[in-house]
Amino acid sequence: MISPTPKPPYHVVIFTSVRTGGDEAAYGEMAGRMMALAAQQPGYLGVEHAGDGAGSLTLSYWESERAIADWKRHTDHLVAQGLGRSDWYARFKVRVAKVERDYGFEREG
Amino acid sequence: MISPTPKPPYHVVIFTSVRTGGDEAAYGEMAGRMMALAAQQPGYLGVEHAGDGAGSLTLSYWESERAIADWKRHTDHLVAQGLGRSDWYARFKVRVAKVERDYGFEREG
Repeated sequence: MISPTPKPPYHVVIFTSVRTGGDEAAYGEMAGRMMALAAQQPGYLGVEHAGDGAGSLTLSYWESERAIADWKRHTDHLVAQGLGRSDWYARFKVRVAKVERDYGFEREG
Repeated sequence: MISPTPKPPYHVVIFTSVRTGGDEAAYGEMAGRMMALAAQQPGYLGVEHAGDGAGSLTLSYWESERAIADWKRHTDHLVAQGLGRSDWYARFKVRVAKVERDYGFEREG
């Protein structure tokens, strides 16, 4: 769940989405394929995802803005983006941000 | 689910957490109270949350780093942070980032 990202600065793409509903199998298959493909891109640092009935949050972490731009233009990803707008999402928002600091906690024992 | 944030730049606190389990009622009550209290703070812009069995993502959006610092030091929030470390979370990570650009999609009709 928690990506082992490096020391900041690095970049994050925040994808907040609400599905149309339906096509669950096809959507799940494509979402899994995109996660696997993203992980192979240069500059990829990790992904965190959580979803429930109300919607879904997907955060992907990247070394650079260049890595984000290259992934956005990847051919297979363009196909998925098209299906997202034509079929899968009622609405979504994408925010691109620069992570400037972080800290964490891990229970001992 | 999707917060109507203003034109960037603004700031986001990304809170990725894994619960210890147990205390569900007390945790839920405190989480709800913190969400309501955060919404009353100066500089608050919105919150997005999703959780499932694996963990939970909570994103809060803020006008400034100052607003984030003031909320972190709020007395009631300090109590909740203490309980988070003593009881509620197995691990968590906090990332503070500056949102530099965004775009969205809304289905017509």
